[in-house]
Amino acid sequence: MHGGDYTGKLLDFSANVSPLGVPEGVRAAIAEAASGAARYPDPYCRRLCTAIAEADAVPPECVLCGNGASDLIFRAALAARPGRALVPAPTFSEYEAALSLAGCAVSRHPLAPERGFRPGDDFLDALPPGIDMVFLCQPDNPTGVTVPKALLFRILRRCRDIHCRLIFDECFLGFLDCPEDFTLQEFLPDFPNLLILRAFTKLYGMAGARLGYALCSDAAFLSRMRRCGPPWSVSGLAQAAGVAALHERGYVDAVRRLVSRERPALYDALRALGLYVIPGEANFLLFQSPCPLDAPLQERGIFLRNCGDFHGLDSTWYRVAVRTGVENRRLTAALREVLDAWRNA
Amino acid sequence: MHGGDYTGKLLDFSANVSPLGVPEGVRAAIAEAASGAARYPDPYCRRLCTAIAEADAVPPECVLCGNGASDLIFRAALAARPGRALVPAPTFSEYEAALSLAGCAVSRHPLAPERGFRPGDDFLDALPPGIDMVFLCQPDNPTGVTVPKALLFRILRRCRDIHCRLIFDECFLGFLDCPEDFTLQEFLPDFPNLLILRAFTKLYGMAGARLGYALCSDAAFLSRMRRCGPPWSVSGLAQAAGVAALHERGYVDAVRRLVSRERPALYDALRALGLYVIPGEANFLLFQSPCPLDAPLQERGIFLRNCGDFHGLDSTWYRVAVRTGVENRRLTAALREVLDAWRNA
Repeated sequence: MHGGDYTGKLLDFSANVSPLGVPEGVRAAIAEAASGAARYPDPYCRRLCTAIAEADAVPPECVLCGNGASDLIFRAALAARPGRALVPAPTFSEYEAALSLAGCAVSRHPLAPERGFRPGDDFLDALPPGIDMVFLCQPDNPTGVTVPKALLFRILRRCRDIHCRLIFDECFLGFLDCPEDFTLQEFLPDFPNLLILRAFTKLYGMAGARLGYALCSDAAFLSRMRRCGPPWSVSGLAQAAGVAALHERGYVDAVRRLVSRERPALYDALRALGLYVIPGEANFLLFQSPCPLDAPLQERGIFLRNCGDFHGLDSTWYRVAVRTGVENRRLTAALREVLDAWRNA
Repeated sequence: MHGGDYTGKLLDFSANVSPLGVPEGVRAAIAEAASGAARYPDPYCRRLCTAIAEADAVPPECVLCGNGASDLIFRAALAARPGRALVPAPTFSEYEAALSLAGCAVSRHPLAPERGFRPGDDFLDALPPGIDMVFLCQPDNPTGVTVPKALLFRILRRCRDIHCRLIFDECFLGFLDCPEDFTLQEFLPDFPNLLILRAFTKLYGMAGARLGYALCSDAAFLSRMRRCGPPWSVSGLAQAAGVAALHERGYVDAVRRLVSRERPALYDALRALGLYVIPGEANFLLFQSPCPLDAPLQERGIFLRNCGDFHGLDSTWYRVAVRTGVENRRLTAALREVLDAWRNA
């Protein structure tokens, strides 16, 4: 569990959401929807699906909304009932949690820290017939690493050939400088085995409202997913928030500019402290520390994501969100104090 | 799917929620929480669980919150993985949907319309060893029928003796005149096989916000349920709404008074139209019609819940919510028109 569950007044670098907070249009839409909260939500999220389909230029029947992307991860696993699945390590832990719940045997493909946790051609070799489902995250959480589209296309084809679904998590894609260079969306029509996950939660700073969606050209599979859980999972408040969020193009541009400017600055600052930092491309950075940071940083009012519970990492690894310049400098100043104290101890 | 998904401007008798709309305190709490929607929700719903524990006088570790009670129905089935389960027919269809998803064989105990769908001692006989899970709803949805506590206690003991969990759905209990006469809450400490479901959705008129909870003295089972789905399933908006709702004692009293006054009036009016009405005790009534009602009532701006998709019922059965006196009289006037037209045709 990351810092969203921390109820104190800390500066929270543990949750990798937009540093600009909830957009005003989204806040207003939720407040307005609150007046109609007595009404059951539309279980088919028709208005929202139509808006997403238009924004993403996909047919509406290829869209399924969920109570956060994590809801859709569980539904995908329960709908497909894979016998064997492959996930990289490290990656988002809910993939394996969902697969295990669905009774699936999970193999982990280890990514090497000395190679910056970058998947290579060996990922293809790890895909023999019998693997029914693969999860990949672009950019990966918690490493921030991207995979070139050429390799992804080979993985996608390989998955199709062995009758395997590729669940491709693009929840952090919107934070990249050029998302279009890293999405697999153009392959949706020809690859019904491809399911793309996206989140409003992170890019639009609305983690508290819970909203994600899946794109897939296999509409029958989306229907199965819809039945693999409660029918009213997306609240009316989240549906209203999502429709409003799709109008926030200026907000998204501002987030992208901020992350694009501050990520390299934070990367350089962490490296200047002598830390081993993975050159991720998302709105967060993964680094390794020579000493424990959790307690001393919390004493300084700052909360990090300790990655000790990720397979393939240990508690020497930390994930920090890219926040505003002022906040990032507060983080690096606090880190300098802690590291200096440790080196002089 | 009931009428909450209908996007028109109909008078909606299909959704059996509070007729008084969202309480002002709940609306204000959601609007306020919207400003902090960028923050991840607390996955443990600590503040809300503490408030529920205090309101219901149970230990906080016996409370688990969910994204509506339906989320908890699915989690209970997935956490228990029963081999065989028993549900009455008719009853809420999500029990069987959740059990089927969990790979469980479901037996239905038919309730007879000529006995008013009232379960009797024969329900006990339908509980041989080998049944791992039973769902019961008090008052039942869609019949509105209650089961006397003496029989329920025998069912609960029988379940314990055969190592069977009883999932006891009290989502509509708050609408009864004397809820305390019909709850099983006092048996929680001695019966870890008992799990009680409750909803904010209905009584507090906040179906659009999604919030329910489970009470169970088997805290390990609640922990398993927590892991049988995504960790952030209850939105921050719903958590804030729930905390605010628990202060709305005046609202609940008003809802209960209104339902207590209007249900008998609506029952009498429906009977006076020559309809066969089940004498339910909840905030809705089930009746049988000699002719189809859906289309002619929609033409008159009114939406009912056709019960054709409930096992044990057919499309001659309709469920209507008890709404305000004015609205209920609009319903009965429209029904009179339709029935008169049919009789004279």
